[in-house]
Amino acid sequence: MKTILIKNISLKNRIVDILIEGNTFKQIDQNIIVKADKIIDGTNKAIIQPFYNMHTHSSMTLLRGYGDDMRLFEWLSEYIWPQEAKLTPEDIYNGTRLAIVEMIRSGTVFFLDMYWHHEAIIRAVEEMKVRASIGVTFIEERGKTEIEENINFINNFKPSSDLITINVAPHAIYTVGKDLYQELFKVAKENNLKFNTHLSETIKEVKDCREANNNLTPTEYLDSIGVLDHNTIAAHCVHLTEHDAEILSSRGVTLVHNPCANMKLASGAFNVPLVNKYECKVCLGTDGTSSNNNLSMMEEMKFAALLAKVSYNDTALLSANQVFAWATKNGAKAMGINSGSIKEGKLADCLIVDLNSDRLIPNHNLISNWVYSADSRCIETVICNGNILMEDRIIPNEAEILEKAKRTII
Amino acid sequence: MKTILIKNISLKNRIVDILIEGNTFKQIDQNIIVKADKIIDGTNKAIIQPFYNMHTHSSMTLLRGYGDDMRLFEWLSEYIWPQEAKLTPEDIYNGTRLAIVEMIRSGTVFFLDMYWHHEAIIRAVEEMKVRASIGVTFIEERGKTEIEENINFINNFKPSSDLITINVAPHAIYTVGKDLYQELFKVAKENNLKFNTHLSETIKEVKDCREANNNLTPTEYLDSIGVLDHNTIAAHCVHLTEHDAEILSSRGVTLVHNPCANMKLASGAFNVPLVNKYECKVCLGTDGTSSNNNLSMMEEMKFAALLAKVSYNDTALLSANQVFAWATKNGAKAMGINSGSIKEGKLADCLIVDLNSDRLIPNHNLISNWVYSADSRCIETVICNGNILMEDRIIPNEAEILEKAKRTII
Repeated sequence: MKTILIKNISLKNRIVDILIEGNTFKQIDQNIIVKADKIIDGTNKAIIQPFYNMHTHSSMTLLRGYGDDMRLFEWLSEYIWPQEAKLTPEDIYNGTRLAIVEMIRSGTVFFLDMYWHHEAIIRAVEEMKVRASIGVTFIEERGKTEIEENINFINNFKPSSDLITINVAPHAIYTVGKDLYQELFKVAKENNLKFNTHLSETIKEVKDCREANNNLTPTEYLDSIGVLDHNTIAAHCVHLTEHDAEILSSRGVTLVHNPCANMKLASGAFNVPLVNKYECKVCLGTDGTSSNNNLSMMEEMKFAALLAKVSYNDTALLSANQVFAWATKNGAKAMGINSGSIKEGKLADCLIVDLNSDRLIPNHNLISNWVYSADSRCIETVICNGNILMEDRIIPNEAEILEKAKRTII
Repeated sequence: MKTILIKNISLKNRIVDILIEGNTFKQIDQNIIVKADKIIDGTNKAIIQPFYNMHTHSSMTLLRGYGDDMRLFEWLSEYIWPQEAKLTPEDIYNGTRLAIVEMIRSGTVFFLDMYWHHEAIIRAVEEMKVRASIGVTFIEERGKTEIEENINFINNFKPSSDLITINVAPHAIYTVGKDLYQELFKVAKENNLKFNTHLSETIKEVKDCREANNNLTPTEYLDSIGVLDHNTIAAHCVHLTEHDAEILSSRGVTLVHNPCANMKLASGAFNVPLVNKYECKVCLGTDGTSSNNNLSMMEEMKFAALLAKVSYNDTALLSANQVFAWATKNGAKAMGINSGSIKEGKLADCLIVDLNSDRLIPNHNLISNWVYSADSRCIETVICNGNILMEDRIIPNEAEILEKAKRTII
């Protein structure tokens, strides 16, 4: 098995050697003497767990900066939807590859996706050796044929590697009806897949749901139709009642906080005191690029922490350590990936960061610097499942990928 | 005079050549044929105006990550104040040089500072050839001797270059009394200097001021003692009434918005609709590193825009173009520096950014990408007053500066 030996690297303020064998952290110790296929000098560098981006629409990178600062409906109807309708599978493939370059450069090794043309996305992920769970997405109005084809795809999908899974992704309660939600929940259960949906993103969604469903909130409604369990991943969850938080916690649902998108689209501030009180499972996600406008989990951590503090008038709320856990190990855990921390026996996902970067000096507290000060310039090397995806800031084939993305005229 | 010719660079979507002669943009045109001392190839790059950071305490970089996520008083009294008391002029010099490296890397060529040991800060600025206005800072309780020495320093200061000015900086209404405010305002006027103060940062400040001053707000109070005019620069201004905004606008005061610090310290959200309504002069600043925790004006722009949208439930509020103006030309204008845009006759301050960066692809709208997507990795070259401060991501002497800062144990 292929081995990588990282020498003299800082791990939680201890200087250690780290041996990666195959896809696993085999040994972490002082002074490991072994003949390895590759040796990385960790002097003046730190090793840190990478990000697990738990909600995005990766290929929307093609729409980065295509319409901002507009009223929501104008933006969607005049800019986003007409352009999305034109995207071919080849465009999606090129957009996903661009997204993956951006994610690697900002330290992300896994993303949970929800978009169209899942086969094109899967092709990009396979090529680039990141981890992903690719949503097979359902919207009622796209018609029965597509829904049947998608279900058929799910029932017959065989992943080409351990890095890739698919998820069953009913878009939201305003685009998917009760019967289809229940059918898809069954499909997810039968195939042991995650059930991935938007939930309580806007006040309008909550209001419309209450009016249509006997005053039930979106969470109460989904619970009443039996589609919330520990495999459910709910994006946004901005507008929650106490009862909602209690339900989401007791069902073991994973909540995904997307602070940048929620701020940019003026959806609202995630209720951190409430999810803390009910000990909900929380992760972080970037959402799609057109409402962010990047895929940086580093920025997402800082936005989450600062938005919580100002929204709830509490400087101690959502500490750097807590939001770092949301962005890393909580995502891995929710997906059942044996990673998210740098420990012997864990899958070898990690970042090597440059402690000589101005943004990490002085180094009173690396996690504080990481959450509040760093940016993607601090990241030198990215390893996923024992594969080096970026080494000394170089990603193989990056130039070709970026050139293709540039030429994908929309 | 020294000349720099930048060939084939994108300026507002046009490809041009740009000739810098001495410290000035001499010519901007297609196909400039001239023998220059230095030629920069601008292919696949864009030129953009740099940032003017209008409120910071630069040498506090030494306290980056030294205590976060705490209640304000605990943080100040147990962490920040005891450490600040220990800082020597040599520490301040080293901290300022670290800050300037960080600012250059994130595209800032000017900062308005307020801190102690102004002579050490001036020394660092002189060496590193950025623009700065260095505050000579006043707090009543530091005693008469220091106040007199500072006033004496101001009255006798001769800048060593056009890049450097000083400003008169009474800290805030809760640390400086009426008589000293008025005396300092006179000193500023006599020396034609900016008058730099914190204003209306927290609810407590407003409440205490109203109680002590016949229900006057901090703005009304400072106006009543006659210290607000077009040379006044007021940092934070988080809690303003309509009447405050009217006063600040009519007096021509420059307001400095510091979104990250205001969020991290849970001070509140700057009232963008109000300052827009009264057409106040607004700039951006990062505040000190210990309450941010970096000096990136790029992050500050995104935080400002997204905080405004979510706080006032308006996706169209504070567009990328508006916040970009706050971060660039508004600062230059407030300081009377003939820069802040890339035009013939303006002082040659600019950034060269890499249009092949993943974060700037696709390039539907460079300003949108710059505000919402970019980070410091996109910046290749920084020019200030015709001097190249960073070229192809290399800052001369950076390693030595960072090493010294690392060794400045606090």
